[in-house]
Amino acid sequence: MSTATLDLTAITAAATEAAKVTAAASDAERASWLTAVADALDANVTELVAIADSETSLGTVRLTGEVARTSGQLRLFAKVITEGSYLEAVIDHADPTSAPPKPDLRRILRPIGPVAVFSASNFPFAFSVAGGDTASALAVGCPVVVKAHSGHIRLSERTAEIVSEALAKAGAPDGIFALVSGREAGTALVQDPAIKAVGFTGSIPGGRALFDLANSRPEPIPFYGELGSLNPVVITADALAERGQQLAAGLAGSFTMGAGQFCTKPGLVFIPAGTDFAAHLAEASKDKPTAAMLTERIAEAYPDGLRNVADQPGVAVVSGTVQQDSLADGAAPVVFSTSAANVLERPEELLEECFGPTTLLIEYANQDELAAALAKVPGSLTGTVHAQPGEDVSALVEQLSGLAGRVLFDGWPTGVAVNWAQQHGGPYPATTSLFTSVGATAVRRFQRPVAYQDAPETVLHPALHDSNPLGIPRRVDGVLTLG
Amino acid sequence: MSTATLDLTAITAAATEAAKVTAAASDAERASWLTAVADALDANVTELVAIADSETSLGTVRLTGEVARTSGQLRLFAKVITEGSYLEAVIDHADPTSAPPKPDLRRILRPIGPVAVFSASNFPFAFSVAGGDTASALAVGCPVVVKAHSGHIRLSERTAEIVSEALAKAGAPDGIFALVSGREAGTALVQDPAIKAVGFTGSIPGGRALFDLANSRPEPIPFYGELGSLNPVVITADALAERGQQLAAGLAGSFTMGAGQFCTKPGLVFIPAGTDFAAHLAEASKDKPTAAMLTERIAEAYPDGLRNVADQPGVAVVSGTVQQDSLADGAAPVVFSTSAANVLERPEELLEECFGPTTLLIEYANQDELAAALAKVPGSLTGTVHAQPGEDVSALVEQLSGLAGRVLFDGWPTGVAVNWAQQHGGPYPATTSLFTSVGATAVRRFQRPVAYQDAPETVLHPALHDSNPLGIPRRVDGVLTLG
Repeated sequence: MSTATLDLTAITAAATEAAKVTAAASDAERASWLTAVADALDANVTELVAIADSETSLGTVRLTGEVARTSGQLRLFAKVITEGSYLEAVIDHADPTSAPPKPDLRRILRPIGPVAVFSASNFPFAFSVAGGDTASALAVGCPVVVKAHSGHIRLSERTAEIVSEALAKAGAPDGIFALVSGREAGTALVQDPAIKAVGFTGSIPGGRALFDLANSRPEPIPFYGELGSLNPVVITADALAERGQQLAAGLAGSFTMGAGQFCTKPGLVFIPAGTDFAAHLAEASKDKPTAAMLTERIAEAYPDGLRNVADQPGVAVVSGTVQQDSLADGAAPVVFSTSAANVLERPEELLEECFGPTTLLIEYANQDELAAALAKVPGSLTGTVHAQPGEDVSALVEQLSGLAGRVLFDGWPTGVAVNWAQQHGGPYPATTSLFTSVGATAVRRFQRPVAYQDAPETVLHPALHDSNPLGIPRRVDGVLTLG
Repeated sequence: MSTATLDLTAITAAATEAAKVTAAASDAERASWLTAVADALDANVTELVAIADSETSLGTVRLTGEVARTSGQLRLFAKVITEGSYLEAVIDHADPTSAPPKPDLRRILRPIGPVAVFSASNFPFAFSVAGGDTASALAVGCPVVVKAHSGHIRLSERTAEIVSEALAKAGAPDGIFALVSGREAGTALVQDPAIKAVGFTGSIPGGRALFDLANSRPEPIPFYGELGSLNPVVITADALAERGQQLAAGLAGSFTMGAGQFCTKPGLVFIPAGTDFAAHLAEASKDKPTAAMLTERIAEAYPDGLRNVADQPGVAVVSGTVQQDSLADGAAPVVFSTSAANVLERPEELLEECFGPTTLLIEYANQDELAAALAKVPGSLTGTVHAQPGEDVSALVEQLSGLAGRVLFDGWPTGVAVNWAQQHGGPYPATTSLFTSVGATAVRRFQRPVAYQDAPETVLHPALHDSNPLGIPRRVDGVLTLG
């Protein structure tokens, strides 16, 4: 299926019309739309999971959990907008005594307009048609046009039908939601003047190309891309000595989860030199089953990626087979190891994401070498520390805070909680913005501040009325109030 | 003066070192640095204003006021960081009962790193060396490298000396602040890997070139540019009938203020067709004195801009002289008029910013024509409505909200209050981001969220400790608390 340009223009024109209605809708109305979509997904979970599994091979357990996460996410955003802080309502009353006199000024965040959402291959629900980007854009009053991922077209279409029907039944306006597919439709979408922001989850080359396109428009628009991440893990000598086997088991579970196709897969693991951790990890990884990859293209890229690492001088294969050219067998886990000194010598070759069940152990001789090698790691979604209680890891935490959006302790980065505190985004290339694509604050990507000066109350959003009829948190004359 | 590349590398390396100290400094410390700079500016106001006047011809009254605004701005940001909301501290405690179990997650905004600030020509204090961009970056812990504007180099250097000395005396680290000058230094700054964000105030061509440069870096960085704005004003028939002369006087004062070199100058004024407003405005404008322009380049561009408008079919000169080629006499006010129908016919030619004391009256035949012509106006910093009490202007306000960052009622857009509710930014080309460059929330441009998962309290920022030792507003388990 491919969406012709004429269709696209009609779709984005309808989105522009819908934007007027969605911007004027109350938070309660928009919350009810999100809840309706969540209920509809849950009601159709069996059918949706069956389609998804046939297209992605991710398995019904994982996929059923992902539907729950997706509907839960929609419900969280309903809660977020009902709570009202997301409007960032600020009132500064006039001050005629100041020099110069200050006018009455009231600021609120408004929806940015129609948003294009590019679905991911690896989360056919949570980062796809009705995923976090769609949910956060709809929540704040932005119509959404989703570009389906070619890896799960039937699921995308069926999900879109369910979403559209639920929205219509709940009273949302025509044009609030549409699905397009095909590469040209995606490119045209990013260039369409009606589109005011883009959410994207995918590869670095694909994402960068669209990022460049969004920025080269006559009117550039924000491009919120999540592109790629190595997710470094650091294990201290003390932690390794105390619980090496347990750490190996945890790591094996994390890097092979979902056939290593998580954006938070731990791809680099820094360990002290001269330990038996590699052997433990080889042992823990050897029984991990092979798994079918999401798409043929991803399956083909995996052995290429493995060879790229294996071909580098100073790299050893700890476990698994680099030659995996029979796609029919699925992807098998491979663990590599090298030294931090070698990473310092060829950072570009060794610090490249390889999508699939593989990870690279990096042995560091001392703290300085660890810090130097970590400094070469590109921006990541996560950074993880495994240390013993009482160890001083403050310098390491500070360094990880500079290169990642989420810093974990004694855990594994796969698995992303959807809540108020989540930050799923980090320095480029992890993401292309200072925002998160998961969790409550994801809505801020699709909002634009507007201040009203000396406005009659009749034209103001209720959030800015003096009496605070919505009862929401606001800042009034510099003081935060709970409403 | 021009800054050699070698110097620049040393400067940004020092900024990177300083960033570690500024990020670790407490809010109280950083607030004291800002206050020290504010005090130093105020203490040197006479000397600074004298230099500024000799370089910009803006006059001592205006410039003295601008110093007060600039030091007041520094003090506002000291207040903002002391209040603590700007950290957006969020704590979600672990929930082992949820499926999957939720970890303890705590999110905070951290400084993005060294920031490059490009000064503006038209506000030698408030949007320059120690202006809003610098103040907001320093406030949140980002070192600043300022690119001086060539229109007031001596002032920039003297201000930088005062700022550097005040920061050093107050205990701020070496490398926290530097000044560079010359076009090549500016270009190199935007491309320097140590620079993590850019603040810019200037022209559309210059700003767009740097925006493109920032986005084409191997690691793109946010470019917060304020580029150009037409600031449309709409006057209703009722308002005109009731107080036409008063409106003409107000408009004449606003469009000629500072020789029309304000980014919020009302450049387009929509009025009902067939009134005597143009005559009133001609009368009100005729005695406005000529004024020297900020720089030779701006002075030379003004008559060119006037001719561009005058040469369009359907444009009449209401008052003033288009031929102003004797720069020695200064710039004289010129008022043009045309019809909304003509704007619809040649929007690109007529809807272009002309820096200087000129404005274009646009006569609309009816509301539909007004709406259609307004729809052609590019993104603006402000949009203004003059209406009578009780008139239904909701559709107009909605339209202006879509094209501007600040919507004013019965006032004039020149003059920008510095407070919590201010929004100085609008859709492109007014600005290149969803943020403001004036007011409390300007700090958010230079902050990056980081979440800490299951972290021991010893490595966490005090804002994220359970006991809330800083006593600041936070969101805990979804509930906003005042601290």
